[in-house]
Amino acid sequence: MSKIRFYNARILTMEEPVQISGATELWVDGKEICYIGDGKAEMLSFDREIDCRGNLLMPGFKDAHTHSAMVLFRSMADDEPLQSWLNNLIFPIEGQMTDEEVYELTKLSVLEYLTSGVTAVFEMYLTPKSIQDAFNECGMRNVQVSGINNFGPALSVMEERFQTLNGRNELSSYMLGFHAEYTCSKELLQQIAEMAKKYKAPIFAHNSETKQEVEECISRYGMTPTQLMDSLGMFEYGGGGYHCVYMDEKDIQIFKERGLSVVTNPASNLKLASGIAPISKFLQNDINIAIGTDGAGSNNCLDMFREMFLVTGLAKYHDMDASSVDAAKVLKMATVGGAKAMGLTKCETLSVGSYADLIMLDLHQPNMQPINNIVKNIVYSGSKQNVKLTMIHGKILYEDGKFNIGCDVDALYDKCNQIASKYNKGRI
Amino acid sequence: MSKIRFYNARILTMEEPVQISGATELWVDGKEICYIGDGKAEMLSFDREIDCRGNLLMPGFKDAHTHSAMVLFRSMADDEPLQSWLNNLIFPIEGQMTDEEVYELTKLSVLEYLTSGVTAVFEMYLTPKSIQDAFNECGMRNVQVSGINNFGPALSVMEERFQTLNGRNELSSYMLGFHAEYTCSKELLQQIAEMAKKYKAPIFAHNSETKQEVEECISRYGMTPTQLMDSLGMFEYGGGGYHCVYMDEKDIQIFKERGLSVVTNPASNLKLASGIAPISKFLQNDINIAIGTDGAGSNNCLDMFREMFLVTGLAKYHDMDASSVDAAKVLKMATVGGAKAMGLTKCETLSVGSYADLIMLDLHQPNMQPINNIVKNIVYSGSKQNVKLTMIHGKILYEDGKFNIGCDVDALYDKCNQIASKYNKGRI
Repeated sequence: MSKIRFYNARILTMEEPVQISGATELWVDGKEICYIGDGKAEMLSFDREIDCRGNLLMPGFKDAHTHSAMVLFRSMADDEPLQSWLNNLIFPIEGQMTDEEVYELTKLSVLEYLTSGVTAVFEMYLTPKSIQDAFNECGMRNVQVSGINNFGPALSVMEERFQTLNGRNELSSYMLGFHAEYTCSKELLQQIAEMAKKYKAPIFAHNSETKQEVEECISRYGMTPTQLMDSLGMFEYGGGGYHCVYMDEKDIQIFKERGLSVVTNPASNLKLASGIAPISKFLQNDINIAIGTDGAGSNNCLDMFREMFLVTGLAKYHDMDASSVDAAKVLKMATVGGAKAMGLTKCETLSVGSYADLIMLDLHQPNMQPINNIVKNIVYSGSKQNVKLTMIHGKILYEDGKFNIGCDVDALYDKCNQIASKYNKGRI
Repeated sequence: MSKIRFYNARILTMEEPVQISGATELWVDGKEICYIGDGKAEMLSFDREIDCRGNLLMPGFKDAHTHSAMVLFRSMADDEPLQSWLNNLIFPIEGQMTDEEVYELTKLSVLEYLTSGVTAVFEMYLTPKSIQDAFNECGMRNVQVSGINNFGPALSVMEERFQTLNGRNELSSYMLGFHAEYTCSKELLQQIAEMAKKYKAPIFAHNSETKQEVEECISRYGMTPTQLMDSLGMFEYGGGGYHCVYMDEKDIQIFKERGLSVVTNPASNLKLASGIAPISKFLQNDINIAIGTDGAGSNNCLDMFREMFLVTGLAKYHDMDASSVDAAKVLKMATVGGAKAMGLTKCETLSVGSYADLIMLDLHQPNMQPINNIVKNIVYSGSKQNVKLTMIHGKILYEDGKFNIGCDVDALYDKCNQIASKYNKGRI
């Protein structure tokens, strides 16, 4: 682990208020930030000193809902509604995917996260052990959550994963959760709730993504998915929901009272014609909001800049109010809000003692000029093109278009294209 | 002018059907494409040979509605509704802007267009002569349209510009048009219609961008803006409208019968809480559709990739149908549709004899992998980060992050920041 000095920087720590701090230097010692200031402290003997040329340092983005290996389905499964897309195309192929294939595809996703300034992912997918191996080998911080349902491994497997996949190292963790109400029996949901109590653990699941999902849950149980989960005692130790597009007042009160997190996925919700989440209402109720890309099968890219613009743009449209959900709020969701949802207490802001999970954004690109307001520039005009450097746990994994994740990028592309060929005969 | 050979390319000509052609080489002689094929023709003596490494050549994007120098307002004027934004913030500053300031800011916008693969712009702004100078000096293809209204130069000025700003060179042209119904008297609109007939010229204007605009026009004239313009004989020689968010059946029939173009601006329409245009209805009526970014004051960036995703994503949401408006249709709007609206007959597709207005997209980036379907990849996952090269009129103006527009980029940033400082005291 090395000592790195960033100087001549603009710094957005994401502590309140959200604005450029007076500091121009940030020092990293091993995995942690050890100094933020004007550079007049006693210098360490640095392994590397990086002239930021006035570019911006800020916390990396947290992609708070994703299915990484679904990069396989990018541009393979478009232009279908959610349920037929899942049942006819995704589930049959997923039934055949091997641990090794998921491992390679997860590594491909890491490349894309790094180009988008993502330093941690909240992951739910098929083969948690091989997924964690892929992330850990690349150096990507990852919080996995169980996607248990009626059709996959038993509850005992989830418990075994919870015990073995936590504590392997500081980069990774594993949380309890399940796929969604509509893929789980009531008995299974009850067992999950018991396990949450046993381990005093939060629970996350897909929740109220489509109108149909909510209507069917009501016809089955006389309650919305949120109310059902709460009635089973599932949220005694917190957690939250992915999507949360169709939420009634009672659902919102449950989220507020239980301190749950909403993870919104606007690109996926548009592309699958699911709907627009009521972001302003969540904010009015002081509910923690995080942002996720969802998997590349439905999005189709892992780009937090696109998601951030959509969160604010769609809120303004939804509320018919151009002042809704301003840039600073969105930037907090993409950083602090994500870290909170994922339980990453040392990754929320740039501060001494926090993990060095940070990005450098190039302000010398035309989309960032003139520099009227950097926070608004990032959310309204920012792009992956602005990501000059991505550092996780003190290690630079991406810099000036070059990757440093311990494997050959072209060879990885070849492997993933071979996997895609196997499942997708009609490709061009 | 030089001879350039592109080889080892994938090529998307944008001729029907929209798919990768069998060709691997494209040759440019001066300003035109002189060959597309397998490279087995007799070689020219090339000035440069570019190994595309399997990357994609396609026509450049046409940004079919923009106010380029409004990059000044990027992140300066957010979170306000359209009318108060225009009246309280934009118009007062625009009243003070000089020809020279607009010239410099227009050059700044060119940098951003090039990073986004834009090879032609449909421009409406304050000082047409200095704007045309800026575009021409940079080498950017530009079609300007008059934005005449009650508060600016007289009709005679528009006519003089129509005569003097056309025919200066092959890169630029000037069309008749006006700002919008709500900024023009009926007398002025009638005079514009007469001039359209005099020159047998098409007419473009902002049209039905907000609900309020349409309602106020109906209360003034008993007709929508489209019906009013048509009743004045304004569309005898074609033209079209920018935005077209609130269009009734009769409006759509007028657009269909007159062969008018819709230019849609989805990011701006979201951010100003204006609404979502009925794209599927336009398609069902065989109306030509083009895509524009609008100015950076309302968008806030000049990024055709974001616009393309929004066109399809918002259509799917609007229609509550995930199969609405697929990728190939959107890619046609952003290229062929734009060229048609702008009257750029030699810029529609990649074909022998067409102007060499093309881009190279990097398929070796993780957001383009695996390569299941390139057309879908571009629209659903594409990003400015993928633009490796932008060529206009046979000249490479942008390549691997470097600009070639005849001026120093950092000096241009400095000038534009000085202009921004003058008008924006509260910047950070």
